[in-house]
Amino acid sequence: MDGYPTIIEELIDRLKKLPGIGQRSGERIVNALLEWKREDITGLAESVLALKDRVQLCQRCFNLSEESLCRICRDPNRTGVILVVEEVRDLAMVEKTGFRGTYHVLGGRISTMEHVGPEHLRIKELLDRIEREPVQEVIIGTNPTPEGEDTAVYLAGILKTTRVPHSRLACGLPVGAEMEYVDSQTLKRSIEGRKPL
Amino acid sequence: MDGYPTIIEELIDRLKKLPGIGQRSGERIVNALLEWKREDITGLAESVLALKDRVQLCQRCFNLSEESLCRICRDPNRTGVILVVEEVRDLAMVEKTGFRGTYHVLGGRISTMEHVGPEHLRIKELLDRIEREPVQEVIIGTNPTPEGEDTAVYLAGILKTTRVPHSRLACGLPVGAEMEYVDSQTLKRSIEGRKPL
Repeated sequence: MDGYPTIIEELIDRLKKLPGIGQRSGERIVNALLEWKREDITGLAESVLALKDRVQLCQRCFNLSEESLCRICRDPNRTGVILVVEEVRDLAMVEKTGFRGTYHVLGGRISTMEHVGPEHLRIKELLDRIEREPVQEVIIGTNPTPEGEDTAVYLAGILKTTRVPHSRLACGLPVGAEMEYVDSQTLKRSIEGRKPL
Repeated sequence: MDGYPTIIEELIDRLKKLPGIGQRSGERIVNALLEWKREDITGLAESVLALKDRVQLCQRCFNLSEESLCRICRDPNRTGVILVVEEVRDLAMVEKTGFRGTYHVLGGRISTMEHVGPEHLRIKELLDRIEREPVQEVIIGTNPTPEGEDTAVYLAGILKTTRVPHSRLACGLPVGAEMEYVDSQTLKRSIEGRKPL
């Protein structure tokens, strides 16, 4: 790329290291930034810089947080139900549903391909919570992928030793989906998980 | 979104003002940034800040530049052919082809819908260049959209008064395209623009 000044090429190269941004979308972002007001650009840069300094992991559930306990763990109105997820992004998705228990972020899922074993996940920390806190139920919310299922099975095995009730998120037809476009595995799971009316 | 700390929500909101970035891609970018090394984050923030301070428009062709003349206009090996484009991003695309003339960035195209008339484009600056510089040819490289074509027709009318040879980029089949998937307008243009063998 000879057309752009060095500073722009540099910025595009940096942006391209972010997920989902390539040469074209990087160029579009730079062109947009050039039309932003100076204070908006400064604000963006400062937010980026503050990220690393101000964000830590919640000591209890391992959500991202600006304090040692995240805002969900500080909320006194949360129930004693722990929903276990693989990553913080999954927590953010569940939170949008209005779920009002707490979470536990494993930090991944068991995967032999990626050399991730149970010892790499925050399972011990989950068991510590179950010992210390009045936990009513643990909902296993790992993804319905082969690795997520393996992780769920492993967790269920361990949770059996604790006497805490535990469950797994239901799989089935997505709301609003048309059956002819749903894959057969999902359809199979929706039959297995059928509910009496 | 209750799940994320304020600083993260703030950053996502700022990122969402950039083209092509929504809530989900913003979240993915923030998660990636959290895993970046501190010096890479600082580098990104500094590049963003430097953008507005260090980038200006080339006085001659209105390309983006770190100096009063852009690196293309400073290059002594460029020919006297001026390729006229709507925006800097178009210039960057042409530059990748190995074209070795110079450019003239109009800063838009004539559009009655968007209330952009010829007086809003850098047409006078183009005519000034034709007067001052030894211009061999002007290639009109506005987009083959209705507005780009209107602009091309308008420019051609004006260039007729200057005695400088002028031409229009060819329209036709994209290289590697299969004819059955090409739209009929493009196909029509490729027939009109056919070349004797």
